Amino acid sequence: MKKESIVVLGAGLVGSLMATYLARRQYQVQMFEKRPDIRSSENDSGRSINLALSHRGLKALNQVGLLSEISKICLPMRGRMMHDVKGALTFQPYGKEGQFINSVSRNHLNTILMNAAETSGVRMHFQEECLAAEPDHSITHLAGPQGTHQVRSDYILGADGAYSGLREALRKTDRFDFSQYYLPHGYKELTITPSAGKFALDPEALHIWPREQYMLIALPNLDKSFTCTLFLPFEGACSFENLVTEKQVSDLFEQSFGDVVEFMPDLLNEFFEHPTSSMVTIRCAPWIKGKACLVGDASHAIVPFYGQGMNAGFEDCRLLDAALDEYQDDFLKAFGAFQKKRIPDANAIAELALQNFIEMRDLVADEEFLLRKKIERRLNKLYPDQWVPLYSRVTFSDERYSNAQRLGKVQRSIMDKVMREPNIHSDWETMDLSGIIGDLKKQADLT
Amino acid sequence: MKKESIVVLGAGLVGSLMATYLARRQYQVQMFEKRPDIRSSENDSGRSINLALSHRGLKALNQVGLLSEISKICLPMRGRMMHDVKGALTFQPYGKEGQFINSVSRNHLNTILMNAAETSGVRMHFQEECLAAEPDHSITHLAGPQGTHQVRSDYILGADGAYSGLREALRKTDRFDFSQYYLPHGYKELTITPSAGKFALDPEALHIWPREQYMLIALPNLDKSFTCTLFLPFEGACSFENLVTEKQVSDLFEQSFGDVVEFMPDLLNEFFEHPTSSMVTIRCAPWIKGKACLVGDASHAIVPFYGQGMNAGFEDCRLLDAALDEYQDDFLKAFGAFQKKRIPDANAIAELALQNFIEMRDLVADEEFLLRKKIERRLNKLYPDQWVPLYSRVTFSDERYSNAQRLGKVQRSIMDKVMREPNIHSDWETMDLSGIIGDLKKQADLT
Repeated sequence: MKKESIVVLGAGLVGSLMATYLARRQYQVQMFEKRPDIRSSENDSGRSINLALSHRGLKALNQVGLLSEISKICLPMRGRMMHDVKGALTFQPYGKEGQFINSVSRNHLNTILMNAAETSGVRMHFQEECLAAEPDHSITHLAGPQGTHQVRSDYILGADGAYSGLREALRKTDRFDFSQYYLPHGYKELTITPSAGKFALDPEALHIWPREQYMLIALPNLDKSFTCTLFLPFEGACSFENLVTEKQVSDLFEQSFGDVVEFMPDLLNEFFEHPTSSMVTIRCAPWIKGKACLVGDASHAIVPFYGQGMNAGFEDCRLLDAALDEYQDDFLKAFGAFQKKRIPDANAIAELALQNFIEMRDLVADEEFLLRKKIERRLNKLYPDQWVPLYSRVTFSDERYSNAQRLGKVQRSIMDKVMREPNIHSDWETMDLSGIIGDLKKQADLT
Repeated sequence: MKKESIVVLGAGLVGSLMATYLARRQYQVQMFEKRPDIRSSENDSGRSINLALSHRGLKALNQVGLLSEISKICLPMRGRMMHDVKGALTFQPYGKEGQFINSVSRNHLNTILMNAAETSGVRMHFQEECLAAEPDHSITHLAGPQGTHQVRSDYILGADGAYSGLREALRKTDRFDFSQYYLPHGYKELTITPSAGKFALDPEALHIWPREQYMLIALPNLDKSFTCTLFLPFEGACSFENLVTEKQVSDLFEQSFGDVVEFMPDLLNEFFEHPTSSMVTIRCAPWIKGKACLVGDASHAIVPFYGQGMNAGFEDCRLLDAALDEYQDDFLKAFGAFQKKRIPDANAIAELALQNFIEMRDLVADEEFLLRKKIERRLNKLYPDQWVPLYSRVTFSDERYSNAQRLGKVQRSIMDKVMREPNIHSDWETMDLSGIIGDLKKQADLT
């Protein structure tokens, strides 16, 4: 055989794509997944059912030749549709004309990626849990259907998620920085069924019911249903802890989400049967020890509010593949270069995702905020190469997250100034905005 | 038997004191310690050999009746003695006349505390490692000389240090916030031997050789030697990584610590034989799950630069004991009250300890900094109840660390203003400082 052997831990979205990339480089790749094969089981993994796939994810999928197959299971969402308490709607486009993000089923996408990995020559093993690892010797200790065993390989890639077994092995080594922080909010998935065979709501939008301390969102599915996610504090006045009777749940939905309750016939059953899940942010450094490297949630799990968890993980795969190109398949050099460049970007998107929760639940229903977005769109139309809104930098480009975050801060401070203009509410469509671009260039160079 | 059974994990300083407090309340206390009994082994634990015991620690030791026994092994250190590169000395008192901190041997102190625990009725078990725990059922899983076994008790106290087995069990539960952060500096312990049967340096000071990116410190021992600790970056120009030959080590010591090299006859052997250790800051929340509670380094390990790690741990024991008083031995209520009040204080001292590293290695050799300290001492003399320097609040009082930190910030901003006075260098001893106290009161009330 020509090339080295590689163990990839985790057959989730990122693990399957990473394995595919590596198999295409002619490595002998073995994958080990803790769960049963989702393709042959009815079991749900307990994770969220649909996700928002956007530019960064699509770029990586395109590189491994999967774009057209995956496009078939994508539903375009062109903007946010905000529902106020009275049911009034406000639509806010995500980007320019023709830009959209994609609602996609996690399980469907994972199935395509696993099949692609197998087709590329990856050997897959299920119900094999990583118990420990020796990164310096590239030995993985696993517990599987035949008991515990160890696998030797040339390198180990840990794509085994936020609760990564490989990362736990690295975490116990000296001088490994690590943090896990949970949001005080949990989430629960619910369903909006089709109405008379059709989508009950506009299918080309991500629907949001922002209610400050909590919110409901809905993403469309191919079967014309929507998957809703209720985000609510675990404890406190209006919280999961205090929703214990059917009446309490009905009352909350009638009062806060009155315009969709009629499309949620199974609400009460789902509410009491579906799990309430927590949301964690994981940060660590280094991502590499010895011959082992972490990718995706294993090294940088983030909260879901920017729709970037999967996209960032797919981008990891693309960037690691590019680093292997650059260093002619010298893994240790490629690992090192990947980590050095990527950690600041992972930290940036982690912070942006936390901030976007505030924006989604509080601000999207705010007049001032909506006006800002309109002015930003006008600026972007007038100066498409210079004024790119932060959301677009993150979602519709592959510029570094850390750069997007930095420029986002500059743009925010400029917009703060613009919003203090006396007649901004009446004049925003006609006022001269040319000075702003000079400010932007100056401040962006300074920071 | 009258009272509940309690498992205390760890027979280190904090575990032994906690067990003593609990045994004095008539609980049945069992302690499990991973290491062999230090009282019957020559083995060094690898941890630093002497520590600075101050007000908070002494207050707790006094409460369990150990003050007079422990005073006998204490060496008073009345201030910092700074050594510049030419060997010139500057002395800076830690507090007011008569205030001092105490150099004490870790092993000696631990021996006294273990003996006190046993005398109070605590049953001690050594070479018993906590592998896992079920906090809701108060079951501890241990591996000891007779193999693995489990111990049931009414409550579990985890005093098992920065790498606590109990905390690891809690960390794996949902919604447990946790971080471990390492300094880029490591440390190594070395010895200054007595000179002609006497202390080679003034024994009533903590000696510091501040050299910006690195430093050496020395604390006196009862046998008239000093234990030195060299703090140096792990990597970089002047680092442990780059001290590999005897010449490199000799050159560094000759150039940077020239005035003490003659008193370090075993320097080269010690340098290459003693371990290079890392320094971690651990933060977590909650400290309580089910019937288990963490104390000391297990929940809040800090870097050593404020000399507060042990003192904070001893204060934990005193405060938990006080909470048991307040809630009439209702453990769950006492745990809850202790945690709620103590976590912000633990976070405050963690931050202060990190900041003090900068102060020790950079500022103590700085003219401006020394003048500040002199003005602060003058203020403290004039207004002893109003102007208490941050160092004194932390070291010579038991006010809450979070309060000390808050007032420290106010005082620093006032001192920034004072230091901008035009003739401050010449007039500081005579200038009118009465306005400052009004500023302090106003700002302290506002924050």
